[in-house]
Amino acid sequence: MTDRREFRDLASPEEAHEVIGNLDISPGTETVALEAARGRVLADRIDATLDVPGFDRASMDGYAVRARDTFGADEADPAVLDVVGSVHAGAEPDVAVEPGTAAEISTGAVMPSGADAVVMVERTTERDEEVAIRTSVAPGDSVMLAGDDIAAGARALGPGTRVTPREIGLLSALGVEEVPVRERPRVGIISTGDELVRPGEDLNSAAGQIYDVNSYTLLSSIEEAGGAATLYPHVGDDYEEMERQLKQAATECDLVLSSGSTSASAVDVIYRVIEEQGHLHLHGVSVKPGKPMLVGDLDDAAYVGLPGYPVSALTIFRTFVAPAIRDAAGYEVPRTETVQGRMAVRERYEEGRRRLMPAGLVADADGEMLVYPVDKGSGATTSLVEADGIVEVPAGTNYLDEGETVSVQLFSPTVRPPTVLGVGEDDPLLSRLLDRLDRPRYLPFGTAEGLRRLDEGVPDFAVAAGPVDDVSAPTLGGWEREWGLVVPEAETDVDSLADLVDGDYRFVNRKRSSGLRRSLDDALDALAAERDTTRQALAERVDGYSLTTGAHESPARKVAAGTADAGLGLATTAAALGLGFVPLGTQPVRVLANPDRVQKDGVAQVETVLEDVASIAAQLPGISERTF
Amino acid sequence: MTDRREFRDLASPEEAHEVIGNLDISPGTETVALEAARGRVLADRIDATLDVPGFDRASMDGYAVRARDTFGADEADPAVLDVVGSVHAGAEPDVAVEPGTAAEISTGAVMPSGADAVVMVERTTERDEEVAIRTSVAPGDSVMLAGDDIAAGARALGPGTRVTPREIGLLSALGVEEVPVRERPRVGIISTGDELVRPGEDLNSAAGQIYDVNSYTLLSSIEEAGGAATLYPHVGDDYEEMERQLKQAATECDLVLSSGSTSASAVDVIYRVIEEQGHLHLHGVSVKPGKPMLVGDLDDAAYVGLPGYPVSALTIFRTFVAPAIRDAAGYEVPRTETVQGRMAVRERYEEGRRRLMPAGLVADADGEMLVYPVDKGSGATTSLVEADGIVEVPAGTNYLDEGETVSVQLFSPTVRPPTVLGVGEDDPLLSRLLDRLDRPRYLPFGTAEGLRRLDEGVPDFAVAAGPVDDVSAPTLGGWEREWGLVVPEAETDVDSLADLVDGDYRFVNRKRSSGLRRSLDDALDALAAERDTTRQALAERVDGYSLTTGAHESPARKVAAGTADAGLGLATTAAALGLGFVPLGTQPVRVLANPDRVQKDGVAQVETVLEDVASIAAQLPGISERTF
Repeated sequence: MTDRREFRDLASPEEAHEVIGNLDISPGTETVALEAARGRVLADRIDATLDVPGFDRASMDGYAVRARDTFGADEADPAVLDVVGSVHAGAEPDVAVEPGTAAEISTGAVMPSGADAVVMVERTTERDEEVAIRTSVAPGDSVMLAGDDIAAGARALGPGTRVTPREIGLLSALGVEEVPVRERPRVGIISTGDELVRPGEDLNSAAGQIYDVNSYTLLSSIEEAGGAATLYPHVGDDYEEMERQLKQAATECDLVLSSGSTSASAVDVIYRVIEEQGHLHLHGVSVKPGKPMLVGDLDDAAYVGLPGYPVSALTIFRTFVAPAIRDAAGYEVPRTETVQGRMAVRERYEEGRRRLMPAGLVADADGEMLVYPVDKGSGATTSLVEADGIVEVPAGTNYLDEGETVSVQLFSPTVRPPTVLGVGEDDPLLSRLLDRLDRPRYLPFGTAEGLRRLDEGVPDFAVAAGPVDDVSAPTLGGWEREWGLVVPEAETDVDSLADLVDGDYRFVNRKRSSGLRRSLDDALDALAAERDTTRQALAERVDGYSLTTGAHESPARKVAAGTADAGLGLATTAAALGLGFVPLGTQPVRVLANPDRVQKDGVAQVETVLEDVASIAAQLPGISERTF
Repeated sequence: MTDRREFRDLASPEEAHEVIGNLDISPGTETVALEAARGRVLADRIDATLDVPGFDRASMDGYAVRARDTFGADEADPAVLDVVGSVHAGAEPDVAVEPGTAAEISTGAVMPSGADAVVMVERTTERDEEVAIRTSVAPGDSVMLAGDDIAAGARALGPGTRVTPREIGLLSALGVEEVPVRERPRVGIISTGDELVRPGEDLNSAAGQIYDVNSYTLLSSIEEAGGAATLYPHVGDDYEEMERQLKQAATECDLVLSSGSTSASAVDVIYRVIEEQGHLHLHGVSVKPGKPMLVGDLDDAAYVGLPGYPVSALTIFRTFVAPAIRDAAGYEVPRTETVQGRMAVRERYEEGRRRLMPAGLVADADGEMLVYPVDKGSGATTSLVEADGIVEVPAGTNYLDEGETVSVQLFSPTVRPPTVLGVGEDDPLLSRLLDRLDRPRYLPFGTAEGLRRLDEGVPDFAVAAGPVDDVSAPTLGGWEREWGLVVPEAETDVDSLADLVDGDYRFVNRKRSSGLRRSLDDALDALAAERDTTRQALAERVDGYSLTTGAHESPARKVAAGTADAGLGLATTAAALGLGFVPLGTQPVRVLANPDRVQKDGVAQVETVLEDVASIAAQLPGISERTF
């Protein structure tokens, strides 16, 4: 038991594919209404049971005639026929066309008895009860014979056909109102982990609770792959309940997935249930991420245990499980699911296992696709939206070289690279600018990281706040923002940076990479120079100086929550959260372009929205226009 | 009025795009549950309202420590700390880590007060109440700080983002259970035309009724483009009811579509309602097919009138209307919607209007895409499944050359070219073979047409029944089938071809292109030679000799229905339908490969299933194995 949990005998990825491919998750057949058939897969061949059209049908407005009566007719010497009546679409003819006669007929109408051709109305002239036919026609002209479109007994659609609007059109023509389709494979999701809380419920962060990411990501991924997903109630640490739900899911589903079982006791329950009611085929696969994958049977259902971290779970699902669901559903691998691109940077990798590397896509100015690794650790959910797919790096590969062509397996068929990719400082005006762009991607990693990546050539633009050293990249535009200390609204004793250093306050800082931090450190340097000491010496006197936080609002939010007395931040934020503010200075915020991408459409879009900075700045206290 | 209906002032396609683009069909905003958000488009920006994680979190199993206590520790000289307790994921820490102490901690658990780093369990040894730490760690090691993944206040997702499983993951992490999304634009479908009957209802072919194809094709196409479709009850020829429904649809929908109004009175009603309650922007567009397109307003709804023929309606919808719906829904044009390919044949076109040419796709042996025109007339619904998309041919183009590169706009984003394309005879054994192939496309146009197209180099294979002259294409396999006259089961007087010629029977023939017809004509030639006359002379004595039908079963079905006394057909069909049979001979059925495509995967698949002909033939009376 213990032995297994250590995953000593890791299967190769190929073995894992094979074992999962051999699981029987194929569903049965069901009948759906025609209007609900789009996207489904036909279970059986459909043969036509009637002729389409069901009658000889006029395909022009004109006159139904006996072709023989028009032989030799032309503009100079028309054939003159008696008009004996008319036939309209949707009506049974009440006339017969005898030699020397014609019947008026409209497109789609039934050919009257005796007639074998239609003369289009443009080549005729009617006067009184006669019509002059100014052309000759052959038997069958402008007539679609019964069954000419589809004949009864003909093979109309094959089994396995994915139903699109076109197939729905053909089935409509055949009068089919119900369609036999493959059922969607039923996939159950059991989420384990004491710390998980479903979205919408209250979260107790002090007790280490986090929202359950995998359940909903898997639910929608299963549906995207053609499965019907069932999310079982979260069981927390009630192992009896967990066992009961595993067993129930096994009777109700074709495939049961679990994720998030980080605790040994939860894994024990899964092992026990599988041993009692099924068979374990595989425990542990030699890929990174995803080592702790389980594959087995539970009664008549297949079982796959996924890793707990969201990016790992989605990666393993996409690589190993989605193909099996698609296959059972009868879906093809969508053509767009893989795109080729060149590595934007060199990426080292020196581990023995095959790596499924999360990767982002960005187009260069010529539209060629560049691929960059997204590596925030699999615990980070933001990787989910910062990566577009994964690159499989074979075991034993030491590095992927810059410029090397790699294949990216997209997370979803609808994934498309962003129109523009930016990295750098986060800022309230920037958030509003981004809203005006069409599908941008922005990574708020701070000014220093933005400039580093711009230098590597990966993003289309970087956003730098504060002083910037020796940057040759062209400036697209920018603004100026007031920064300082965000404090409680009620009077506090903090009035300056000196007060912060000299007093006894709980402070919250920003990360070293941020431009705000850079300006604070510059100000501390100045104060240290005044006092003839060092910045470090001053910093050590500030409680929380090394307590850094994620986004530009974070310190202010801690002040608002009462867990800090002062935070590094912006006047804009203080105003938005109704807090007090001690101004310490202003800093420029520059939007810098990748010199190789100034021609790219997305960069032009950024330039255009930047022209409107003044109007946005006017709505944000503490931010003002600035030219560069 | 009359003036308008003649569509004298045709708009250019560009004007039509512009007029439709200016229609206001943009929907409002609604809130959906997270699990129902996949595929929807965010109406607003979503900012994080909480830190993720919400607490400083251990990212390894191990010991929570004060980093300072480990400084200098290594394998040779471990730091020994007192273990004061343990913290598990999902539980509030009940210990504090004072200098010189450590707490056992599991991945995902809350860092206990005092601790600032985690030492991974692999670098520690626990004995009694102490732990030996065999490495030194820095503050923050193996700890994810609160907000490190996403910080409260950060911009999480932008407006206009299409929600995929990844975005659902991020929203889950933020605890979002309801998502503000754009409503789907509501599109109403009014189907007009006296002759149309909805699938599932009874069809009176004698009265010229046909099943309504456009309503369901449009319904599913609207949904595919991101709209919410409503199909209004079919109104037939009740113009008051039609007017009432148009007005009701205008109040309930953002866009109203009508199709199939072929009768002048129906068009009158539409004109009158638009004139009373709206405005007509455009009547008639200079494209083929699709000239009679109307664009206008009806109260607050936009209105587009589509042509009646299914392929025309779908082509016009796809070209002009779908982009407007997608735009209102916030969908991107799917990347796969257009594919490039080379023309497989030269195609002439000598009309002034821009042409939207239905086209099929077939891959050559190297996977390069070839494009061929599908031109069965827009009245044929089978064009729907025989074409993959349309090629826009500019007005004034006289021809598309063979080998010329063209762009095919796919009918649906999921459209993919068939794995293998065949043309030729239809046959009961062939139908079963096709069922075993993965996404084949087979055009049952008869032996002669199959050979002609194989000669042009378009299909991957052709199926030829009967004698074949000088064909150099390689034979992949085939079978033999018994052909003759299908007659009523009860005794009839027909015992031979001579009886048919000499007696007074209603006969049903097959088309000239079919191999069955070729064999019948050969037999008539032989009889004519015996009697020292001509085939034509004999044929003229057979009532219905020139009455040809669509599929191989069609003549037999007419016999079964009692509308004919004898039909050209197969022993297999007679047996299947319980009819009598007068054998006239056997004919080979050959599957011939395109010499340039023998390496293509789909052709190899055909070859493989052909190896199994004997077992299928065994189930079909009148068909036997044959080697070539």
